Amino acid sequence: MSERREGEGALPIDPGKVPDATVAFIGRVGSAWKDRADCPKNMAAARQTGQPAMLQLDEAYRPGLDGLQRSSHAVVLTWLDRSVRDLIVQKPRHAAAPSGVFALRSPARPNPIGLHVCRIVAVDAANGVVQLDSIDVLDGTPLIDIKPYFASTDSIPDASRAERESSD
Amino acid sequence: MSERREGEGALPIDPGKVPDATVAFIGRVGSAWKDRADCPKNMAAARQTGQPAMLQLDEAYRPGLDGLQRSSHAVVLTWLDRSVRDLIVQKPRHAAAPSGVFALRSPARPNPIGLHVCRIVAVDAANGVVQLDSIDVLDGTPLIDIKPYFASTDSIPDASRAERESSD
Repeated sequence: MSERREGEGALPIDPGKVPDATVAFIGRVGSAWKDRADCPKNMAAARQTGQPAMLQLDEAYRPGLDGLQRSSHAVVLTWLDRSVRDLIVQKPRHAAAPSGVFALRSPARPNPIGLHVCRIVAVDAANGVVQLDSIDVLDGTPLIDIKPYFASTDSIPDASRAERESSD
Repeated sequence: MSERREGEGALPIDPGKVPDATVAFIGRVGSAWKDRADCPKNMAAARQTGQPAMLQLDEAYRPGLDGLQRSSHAVVLTWLDRSVRDLIVQKPRHAAAPSGVFALRSPARPNPIGLHVCRIVAVDAANGVVQLDSIDVLDGTPLIDIKPYFASTDSIPDASRAERESSD
């Protein structure tokens, strides 16, 4: 259980103890970020640091990388294993009011899956290594999936987010 | 174990039996697609059908929707529970050659997480319902996460994918 800020709310159950399905870790992220204070809070901030990142896949999963080098970008899914899972309403440190977790990109969520759209720098399938431009997670974070990014379905340049209104 | 096409390869282990972490289902997808033959293969095809979709959240998770209505689009993560998980090299039906699973958006993957960028039509947090423009998964598919889509970090309009070369 994490420290609570005013207006935050917890679930009546811990989603980490509801085993509807199981996740297998397929490898780990290598990043420059060794603790939370240093770790960029999103991909824009991560790219601004100029610090590259990499994915190291476990041996069994390496044949799965064949062909990924044809894509310029990937969606990387990670398992944010240091996050609490029961904080359903959260008040980010710099926000004026609390929000539901599904309106936030907070790492604390019922299923702590991190989603990172990254540029692929190089793929070494034999050694299970994918070099990336950058990433916004701690070094050693478990990797659970890599998907090729398709601009046709994944890119919505005019997607928007309204400012919070006083009545919100 | 699914039927194998030439050039496909399986993992030595079943990732569904490697419980590194557990996933909680937070609700279900409602879609027009009752069986695989009808189900669109990607979000572009789904949108072309003009068939809307919805997410129905379980009661405990509904407070998590507060604020999502401010976003025009969301990333919806689903658990593709009818997929095999050990097919590490796959030959899509219309492809000339096999590819690694991480170069494909196939539902059959070590962690069968579906990623769908959807337009939000309406959010009814009290009843746990999110109306979407469309979705490319079967009716009843488990829901595991919803994230607000941020064009600043999630949209890469010039992301590309090279054609497969003969030497590939």
